[in-house]
Amino acid sequence: MRNTTGLKPVPLSQVTLSGGFWAERQAVNRSVSVPVEYDRCQETGRLAVFDLNWKPQDSWRPHHFYDSDVAKWIEAAAYSLTTHPDPALEGQVDAVIERIVAAQQPDGYLNTFFTMMTPDERWTNLRDMHELYCAGHLIEAAVAWREATGKTALLDALCRYADYIGEVFGPGEGQRPGYPGHEELELALVKLYRATGEERYLSLARFFLDERGRQPHYFDVEAAERGEAPGQAHYGHDHRYNQSHQPVRRQSTVEGHAVRAMYLYSAMADVALETHDEEMAAACRRLWDNMTQRRMYVTGGIGSSSRGERFTVDYDLPNDIAYAETCAAIGVVFFAQRMFLLDGESRYIDIMERALYNGMLSGVSLQGDTFFYANPLAVDPAQYAARPDLFRGGVVAPRRQAWFDCSCCPTNVARLLADLGAYVAATAEQRVYVNLYTTGTISVDLQEPVQLEVETDYPWGGRVRLVWHGRPQQAGLALRVPGWCRQADVALNGEPWNGPYLRHKGYLLLERCWSEGDTVTLDLAMPVERVYARPEVRADVGRVALQRGPLVYALESCDNGPNLDALVLPRDAALTVQREPGLLDGVVTIRGDGWRVGAEAGSSGLYRKQAHAHRGVSLTAVPYYAWANRDPGEMLVWIREA
Amino acid sequence: MRNTTGLKPVPLSQVTLSGGFWAERQAVNRSVSVPVEYDRCQETGRLAVFDLNWKPQDSWRPHHFYDSDVAKWIEAAAYSLTTHPDPALEGQVDAVIERIVAAQQPDGYLNTFFTMMTPDERWTNLRDMHELYCAGHLIEAAVAWREATGKTALLDALCRYADYIGEVFGPGEGQRPGYPGHEELELALVKLYRATGEERYLSLARFFLDERGRQPHYFDVEAAERGEAPGQAHYGHDHRYNQSHQPVRRQSTVEGHAVRAMYLYSAMADVALETHDEEMAAACRRLWDNMTQRRMYVTGGIGSSSRGERFTVDYDLPNDIAYAETCAAIGVVFFAQRMFLLDGESRYIDIMERALYNGMLSGVSLQGDTFFYANPLAVDPAQYAARPDLFRGGVVAPRRQAWFDCSCCPTNVARLLADLGAYVAATAEQRVYVNLYTTGTISVDLQEPVQLEVETDYPWGGRVRLVWHGRPQQAGLALRVPGWCRQADVALNGEPWNGPYLRHKGYLLLERCWSEGDTVTLDLAMPVERVYARPEVRADVGRVALQRGPLVYALESCDNGPNLDALVLPRDAALTVQREPGLLDGVVTIRGDGWRVGAEAGSSGLYRKQAHAHRGVSLTAVPYYAWANRDPGEMLVWIREA
Repeated sequence: MRNTTGLKPVPLSQVTLSGGFWAERQAVNRSVSVPVEYDRCQETGRLAVFDLNWKPQDSWRPHHFYDSDVAKWIEAAAYSLTTHPDPALEGQVDAVIERIVAAQQPDGYLNTFFTMMTPDERWTNLRDMHELYCAGHLIEAAVAWREATGKTALLDALCRYADYIGEVFGPGEGQRPGYPGHEELELALVKLYRATGEERYLSLARFFLDERGRQPHYFDVEAAERGEAPGQAHYGHDHRYNQSHQPVRRQSTVEGHAVRAMYLYSAMADVALETHDEEMAAACRRLWDNMTQRRMYVTGGIGSSSRGERFTVDYDLPNDIAYAETCAAIGVVFFAQRMFLLDGESRYIDIMERALYNGMLSGVSLQGDTFFYANPLAVDPAQYAARPDLFRGGVVAPRRQAWFDCSCCPTNVARLLADLGAYVAATAEQRVYVNLYTTGTISVDLQEPVQLEVETDYPWGGRVRLVWHGRPQQAGLALRVPGWCRQADVALNGEPWNGPYLRHKGYLLLERCWSEGDTVTLDLAMPVERVYARPEVRADVGRVALQRGPLVYALESCDNGPNLDALVLPRDAALTVQREPGLLDGVVTIRGDGWRVGAEAGSSGLYRKQAHAHRGVSLTAVPYYAWANRDPGEMLVWIREA
Repeated sequence: MRNTTGLKPVPLSQVTLSGGFWAERQAVNRSVSVPVEYDRCQETGRLAVFDLNWKPQDSWRPHHFYDSDVAKWIEAAAYSLTTHPDPALEGQVDAVIERIVAAQQPDGYLNTFFTMMTPDERWTNLRDMHELYCAGHLIEAAVAWREATGKTALLDALCRYADYIGEVFGPGEGQRPGYPGHEELELALVKLYRATGEERYLSLARFFLDERGRQPHYFDVEAAERGEAPGQAHYGHDHRYNQSHQPVRRQSTVEGHAVRAMYLYSAMADVALETHDEEMAAACRRLWDNMTQRRMYVTGGIGSSSRGERFTVDYDLPNDIAYAETCAAIGVVFFAQRMFLLDGESRYIDIMERALYNGMLSGVSLQGDTFFYANPLAVDPAQYAARPDLFRGGVVAPRRQAWFDCSCCPTNVARLLADLGAYVAATAEQRVYVNLYTTGTISVDLQEPVQLEVETDYPWGGRVRLVWHGRPQQAGLALRVPGWCRQADVALNGEPWNGPYLRHKGYLLLERCWSEGDTVTLDLAMPVERVYARPEVRADVGRVALQRGPLVYALESCDNGPNLDALVLPRDAALTVQREPGLLDGVVTIRGDGWRVGAEAGSSGLYRKQAHAHRGVSLTAVPYYAWANRDPGEMLVWIREA
């Protein structure tokens, strides 16, 4: 049994982010994103659906996943309140919760769309209608709200709903052997189990996982019961689309809708961890390896096809038509955290960090009020305008948007940013693992309570200073050495570390008897790195991406002029970095001397026998996450290299 | 007035193609394509529609452009019979014509779809329903059949139909100011004018051209009459889609559906030529320049977007998702021929030749029985399978197909190949222009009759031998020097030409008193050329295409292994050619030493900090037109260059 690391995340309430990169993003999230998302929910009827009195003359129309958007907003508010109390926000949430609880039906059922619009169709189309998905998000919200405030009204309601679901679905006589079309409830049930200690919720999660992909195929059976041919899926996809093409324990390639996949695999890892299920853990590891070694963008984005928001085939990672949904990068974070807990290896956190700093964070503007749904790695606005078919115009645009009809991403970003403290550290027995370096404090109880005070300029600099506060005790401090880092130096109280020194699963494991005020300084060398994709990734052959620390960089035309594909970065070009506090809320830029291929002025021929001349230019790259915060224009991650 | 070149094409009946490249393609066209297309028309109800007795229980259903497919097949048969009499085929066509003529209504109307399916909707939706388009193709067929056989039944019927159309449409009281949604009738009416001498057909063509794009917009008016909002176009496109966004004389960029555009501009050039309309000619030249300098693939393909089968914006020429419909390349040939007649410049024939040998010819298999609709310049079958949304699965596939629901391309290829002799040469006063070099004879009447006997291995070799047969006369022989050719040498009777020697509009103009047996030898230097696209074409930056003579080359994975994008051709690599009679019906291949970028065996990482190693490989390129005639696999025109 490998999955017995004993690792537990340090909970959000015990981590403060007091300054620096993530604290700034959290401040914007708290002061802008959470309030504007409430307004958007209100304007679009997402709150009003809970009053169950929609009328056809209303300006909005209920949708079958509206409940989930509000649930994710509550989760965001709950996490935010955990670290930053705000009575006005708390009151706002309580009022929303009151409406939600009032919408619950006598039997415990709680779904506004079915209750109002299609009451006779309850549980008739698990495949397409997000009914169990909405339940999962409401459960996650309820657990978060109870943890943030101690208030149980929502959790009580959702336990009743979960119990009702547990009556309807299950292996018993008269129960349905169904499972969610859009996974989410499974991981929510594990959270509910942890919050309540009720084993039945964990069992139900495992039931849903193990029913998935069994024959006779539930989605075909229910389609037949609806009088539909099995092939007439609502989204026109096969069973791979929702990962029901095989029993989950046998799956080995990441398939279908990327967000669904991440929520499924996260739940699989949860169940593997909770039940010491090595077969399930092995499936998770296979899926992880396939995803990270063959089907992931350098930004941590996944799901390269806009059609079906899905995975395609190995190495099919086009940059301009990349989908790489923001929610999918968030799902990578969820999956990575659980794999870390399962195996204790820092390589999982490497991928988490890649997704957090790049493919997730690009999903929200620096101002916090607009959002990307898709996160391509190369954008030419002229091509977007000319080829709306390629880019699903409303969703993928060269500018972030205030909201979407299907608006899963904005609230997902908000709940993750607010919850970021929960990903910073973990403990196992007498060890503290530090995974994300960010200024603040981490409070944990080992044999004695400890408060770790962390100070760092990360990701702009690689120095991290950690001060140990607490009574003396023998303990291990496991400092993550990021996969991008080629040299990590560590000092204790100003002297090079000379005690026991262990590289363990990607961590620097410092074991000693720690005393109050002991200060560890970690220096992670953070030069600009050139990153190359495997040549099987056709879109990236002959190209290089720039990365510094966890940040992937991009060229924008506002810095480099139009037609970014005409730029070339020679392999031996020196790359310099510059801290620019006034630019894009403060970033480090990367500059290098390159070339621009250009046609001579006045030449008109489209094709000719001479190669075009180069002229020297200076290239400027900014962090990918910060692109599209200035004048609209082109963007390019993978730069041509000579 | 520039458009007074006096140029006339040497008609098909006066040109024989007795051997070599095009004669071989014509033989396959005659023996395979024309018969199989008849069979497909029969199997799919395209012939039966003319019997006007379709019943809902039939295995096929009439379609609003079925008439045109049969018309193009008749045209193909007519051209084929002109050069290769075949009583069985002639009888087959006569039988079809009998059914067509019988389908004509008492008032002259002749459209099977409207007559059978929607008789009350005649002329109510010119924009979408191809009603006038079908009329145009029937007229072209009728003219071709009369010229091939002298038989007038079809021409008489179509004159009646044209006269009826001329009553319905026109500037007069009670007439409709409409015009075809899919252009075609305009150029057909010019052909009908030339065949009959009736000026009214030319006038009607000009009327249709000049009404196009006028306000109030006819298509909006008729949409309103149907009770539809103007924006609800059948194909979801704006007026640019069918080139009705502006009066045609003011248009300066090639827009919309590429085939429609080519047929429109061809008719504009026809009318400019026939009526010495310099304003119209100037519009044609502007459109030509925009198309050839900004919106055309190196294969002569146009219309880079599958959505709308249309042009997009300048330099938007992606290779993998290229549409480049076969019919559009054929339309380029039509437009080019007319521009040549208008201006007498060989640069138009350069583009015609580019389309003929590449983007058109790729549309049919070497065996003649399967067809491409779209002609991309880079194909990865795995990506096709994974992303059907990008590639319109049914239409664009890595294998040619036997037929299509919308099957305009196969019959279009067949009629052009059968008619190829009509593009070989032209005369103006005492001059013979030779545009396409192909073994055979060209018979023309100058002051005295002349027969030019041509012998060449073109496009495999650049030597052309022309023997003059006829009584002595002073005349000019204008030999086209292709734009791809950097050195052309000419000899007369074995001695270097030493008479008057003129480079005139891209021709070597040889003027003398010619006598029986005078033999001119033209040597066109034909090395392998590297071709570069303007750097504004993002998809081609850093890449090179190989061309030899008029042929563009491509790599196929069956010669070069998988992942063609991992191959690099150094700029200084020597390129050698080899004649391979047993390969692909006999081609010249190009070989060169290059590199393949490869991941080390056993390495699994997707991204890394070291560039991947190269190893030396030999690259083999085959003519683009011949790709996809072996095992299905990848194809690539634009090769990465170092």
